[in-house]
Amino acid sequence: MEPTRPRGRRPAGTDTRGAILAAARTEFAERGFEAASMRSVARRADVDPALVRHYFPDRTELFAVSVLPETANPVEVAERVVAGGLPGLGERLVTEVLTVWADDDGEAFRAAVGLMAGGVERPRALVAYIGRTVFERIGRLVAPDEVPLRVGLLASQIAGLLMVRYVIRMEPIGSMPIPQVAALVGPTLDRYLTATLPSPRPGP
Amino acid sequence: MEPTRPRGRRPAGTDTRGAILAAARTEFAERGFEAASMRSVARRADVDPALVRHYFPDRTELFAVSVLPETANPVEVAERVVAGGLPGLGERLVTEVLTVWADDDGEAFRAAVGLMAGGVERPRALVAYIGRTVFERIGRLVAPDEVPLRVGLLASQIAGLLMVRYVIRMEPIGSMPIPQVAALVGPTLDRYLTATLPSPRPGP
Repeated sequence: MEPTRPRGRRPAGTDTRGAILAAARTEFAERGFEAASMRSVARRADVDPALVRHYFPDRTELFAVSVLPETANPVEVAERVVAGGLPGLGERLVTEVLTVWADDDGEAFRAAVGLMAGGVERPRALVAYIGRTVFERIGRLVAPDEVPLRVGLLASQIAGLLMVRYVIRMEPIGSMPIPQVAALVGPTLDRYLTATLPSPRPGP
Repeated sequence: MEPTRPRGRRPAGTDTRGAILAAARTEFAERGFEAASMRSVARRADVDPALVRHYFPDRTELFAVSVLPETANPVEVAERVVAGGLPGLGERLVTEVLTVWADDDGEAFRAAVGLMAGGVERPRALVAYIGRTVFERIGRLVAPDEVPLRVGLLASQIAGLLMVRYVIRMEPIGSMPIPQVAALVGPTLDRYLTATLPSPRPGP
């Protein structure tokens, strides 16, 4: 449908972002996070490197978006979760997160775990991106003390819940309706966000 | 140090179990859980297949033990956790689990995640073994209702905590003293084990 393609390059357009993401998935899978480059992704996607940077400011964000399901929009998720304020936030967050990864019955999440295993930088990149887009917005709702700790506790429960539901598929959680899982796990997230945390004992 | 080795086979002895485990790690890494066989592990370890079955009744247990740190003893862990009864159980469980995987600074756990990614049977095998040796003993302490659900919730928090601490290494949880992490996360496990769980809403 493209009449001419000067310099053999794909022009900016509707599925350019998708083509870059597909190229990134191949690049990360074949070369790993550390060796992957934005330039090589551009070459694989047949676009100008500047266009890659237009959609994805850095490799971290490119990696993170490439392992999320295509329909996921973390900014919208965060806005919906935060819009209701603190009451019921944990339950809303579980519902949104499970729904995002449920679209393909967890396939994208299993692929992400596969890509992340064996390297520390890759899961950190995903967490940094989710942190920027989702957790910082949520963090603004809670007392500003100990936000990194509260976010870490939140992440620990959410990551494990995704493992149990979409990787291990432990029953009954593996096939329980999402609202029911949210009612069980939501209060844990609320506690991590708002409860008075035990003060650290004096270290050694 | 072995004077004669009839039929070229390693006799039962001190490091036979270790040799079988090393062979199993190679076998699972190279062939995956589904294609791995007890017979092939025996061949790699240069022992009689009956000896493999003497130490490890089935492939599930062989896999599970092969991805645990060498010093881990799940039965002893479970006994220490359960011995104190329900009060403080969550805190003791977090302490024991983090300690088991801390011996090698999380290397065995990262390797386990790598082995488990991409397959559903492998993580299930590990969970089935941990379930048999640890969670069933804990389950006997709690009301017999909904034990599989309570164990699933427990597993979700523990798996995620291990991810955050040993794979992602999110700070401050990544390098926080274990007793401090236990004080933060223990109450979540206590709630999952003992609280009245919200009753499921009528399904569709």
